[in-house]
Amino acid sequence: MTETQNSSSPSRRALIGWGGAGLALGAAAAGGAVAAAKAGNDVDPTAAEAGGAVEFHGAHQAGIATPVQDRLHFAAFDVKTDDRAEFVRMLKDWTEAARRMTAGKAVGEGAYGGLAEAPPDDTGEALGLKPSRLTLTIGFGPSLFERFGLAHRRPEALVDLPQFPGDNLDRTRTGGDLCIQACADDPQVAVHAIRNLARIGFGKVAIRWSQLGFGKTSSTTPDAQTPRNLMGFKDGTRNIAGTETDRLKKFVWVGDGDGPGWMEGGSYLVARRIRMNIETWDRTSLQEQEDVFGRDKGEGAPVGKAKERDKPFLKAMKPDAHVRLAHPDSNGGITILRRGYSFTDGSDGLGRLDAGLFFLAYQRDVRKGFIPLQRRLSAQDALNEYIQHVGSAVFAVPPGVRDKDDWWGRTLFSKEA
Amino acid sequence: MTETQNSSSPSRRALIGWGGAGLALGAAAAGGAVAAAKAGNDVDPTAAEAGGAVEFHGAHQAGIATPVQDRLHFAAFDVKTDDRAEFVRMLKDWTEAARRMTAGKAVGEGAYGGLAEAPPDDTGEALGLKPSRLTLTIGFGPSLFERFGLAHRRPEALVDLPQFPGDNLDRTRTGGDLCIQACADDPQVAVHAIRNLARIGFGKVAIRWSQLGFGKTSSTTPDAQTPRNLMGFKDGTRNIAGTETDRLKKFVWVGDGDGPGWMEGGSYLVARRIRMNIETWDRTSLQEQEDVFGRDKGEGAPVGKAKERDKPFLKAMKPDAHVRLAHPDSNGGITILRRGYSFTDGSDGLGRLDAGLFFLAYQRDVRKGFIPLQRRLSAQDALNEYIQHVGSAVFAVPPGVRDKDDWWGRTLFSKEA
Repeated sequence: MTETQNSSSPSRRALIGWGGAGLALGAAAAGGAVAAAKAGNDVDPTAAEAGGAVEFHGAHQAGIATPVQDRLHFAAFDVKTDDRAEFVRMLKDWTEAARRMTAGKAVGEGAYGGLAEAPPDDTGEALGLKPSRLTLTIGFGPSLFERFGLAHRRPEALVDLPQFPGDNLDRTRTGGDLCIQACADDPQVAVHAIRNLARIGFGKVAIRWSQLGFGKTSSTTPDAQTPRNLMGFKDGTRNIAGTETDRLKKFVWVGDGDGPGWMEGGSYLVARRIRMNIETWDRTSLQEQEDVFGRDKGEGAPVGKAKERDKPFLKAMKPDAHVRLAHPDSNGGITILRRGYSFTDGSDGLGRLDAGLFFLAYQRDVRKGFIPLQRRLSAQDALNEYIQHVGSAVFAVPPGVRDKDDWWGRTLFSKEA
Repeated sequence: MTETQNSSSPSRRALIGWGGAGLALGAAAAGGAVAAAKAGNDVDPTAAEAGGAVEFHGAHQAGIATPVQDRLHFAAFDVKTDDRAEFVRMLKDWTEAARRMTAGKAVGEGAYGGLAEAPPDDTGEALGLKPSRLTLTIGFGPSLFERFGLAHRRPEALVDLPQFPGDNLDRTRTGGDLCIQACADDPQVAVHAIRNLARIGFGKVAIRWSQLGFGKTSSTTPDAQTPRNLMGFKDGTRNIAGTETDRLKKFVWVGDGDGPGWMEGGSYLVARRIRMNIETWDRTSLQEQEDVFGRDKGEGAPVGKAKERDKPFLKAMKPDAHVRLAHPDSNGGITILRRGYSFTDGSDGLGRLDAGLFFLAYQRDVRKGFIPLQRRLSAQDALNEYIQHVGSAVFAVPPGVRDKDDWWGRTLFSKEA
């Protein structure tokens, strides 16, 4: 079967046959599904723009350098089993499900006919939807390495994040033994993917916390406009583009010699739930808002410049301006790949929106990326008056799944690695 | 100014000038904004399909018969002022803001130049985004009529909903003096609208609860596929289409003689947060799932039929099948207009997704619509094993804003009405 390399954009409907209670569609549709999959191994270069599929296999996991999709569903899981073999089996099952879902297919083989007495292999709410550029990216948290005899394999770079000034972390939104980042242009496709992985993992893992992101706040596409965050500003203009191979190699991918070997081609992910004091911000003058960021609000240009992507003149900004403090030139070149999303999770019981930025950043080494950057920002950033970090997690994101025989975590769990 | 009738789909960017801190854009952009608005009063009939604007004015409020947009942000507010004049002033300010935002413009006049020392009139996160078919629909809850000397104007049809069997209502997700339903194809546009209305209402109203809906579960477009809910099923296939003038008149719009006069052209909205026991459902056999709904899962066809929209043969279904119980033929013709959205709000602390359906239904009279229907469903529906109603509210939705001099609630608050 070449179906796993199919990057065209079939409707999920076309690939799936359900055994209808009153219909004899099952067998016919199942046959059709296989035929469609077999015929579908021509790569359509426009697929990514047409709600199509993103290639699941590769040296790196998709969902990092991939052009940022519109929506996010992120879940952190706790492990519930002590049986290493059972956990590895789940990782293999997850990989196969991820391979299928990112290709726009339902979980399980196409044929549902004759299985009416069993729970469906797929929960069904994504039937008929396009692949929607779904990517699924797995990460392993520090606490996973306290299990399964993995302690000696924990990367030195996978440090527990320190407590930063101003942190007000909610334990129920912090940590996790592993994570899945699901990004897609259709939120139903992202939610469907997390849900089906949780279902497959039932008894082995349980969701610790999850986060829906409704709007992207970063771009990994060169020259694209940076989307606005909920403060109304463009932030992270100099983000690494997915096409910038050199910067990705330098700042994002774990390289040969970085150690350990099983992480080569992987990356480290920091996730932070950053609540914005929206109501306070909204009553702040335009001048103050622009001073805080060091940009103008309309265009997003750095102070004194005309365009968003003009090179900033940092000394023209206030000393505690966000752009000035976060800029690589102020930090000995520290650069991270940002992939965060805006969230709005109802209100907080005090009539205020519970909204902000779910910050996601990938880097080659957290000790040379997020940690020194956030030490500086948490101590000095003018923005701190309007935000609070309320959730936090860090994950080692292993390299990509090479081919259809490979699986998530093989380099960590296999003896050969 | 004819800008309020502009239904073309300009970028928000084109209409807005910000006074940049380091730029002299203010005045020029402000002039440009007025010019663009004045030139923009040709109606583009394709706008609605191209991320364009939906007409705000009309006999009925938009957002009811309007083809269902992709995303929802819904907010219920409590009133915080006892000053009727102040509240009416806020309704007028809200109307003007809604008129502008639904046309794809920022709140406030186009000119932000020279106001750097004041909070911006608009929070800015929708700058550069399209109107995205934004509709804003206001409703008045029963408790509003305990204020401002309105008791004698409360419609008889605006009853408090009874407690139904199985209800497990969370007070913090129930009720509200008024509500705003924001629907748009871009969630950032819907969130922006609610936030800016909340900001304008500061001190007069406060958000009691709010709900983000990420995927539509109904269609008000004739012959369109019904989107799937999070159970993976199509439900509400026979929904009223926005073009079915006769059924809208019969079942949705408050008519002459229904009383009170100020509600003529309006409707009544029932909102229910329905939590789904996702994990239990996902371990239920396909046969059971299809029996519960009375449809097959793949196509959505009623039991024994081939296509979603085939007329169901109710007696072929189990007596407690959802479709059978909810069908107008089983209920003396009861018909409601459904406009619900799927939600996923993280997890519940027990490793389960907090997900389900945010049910929204419009009807001419709640006593002849949702209440008798839900009495029957809550007592008998097989689906009850897998769902729970955890939030509830009912609102009188006044008629549309007629023109640029009219405002939300005028028919209720004006002496002349």
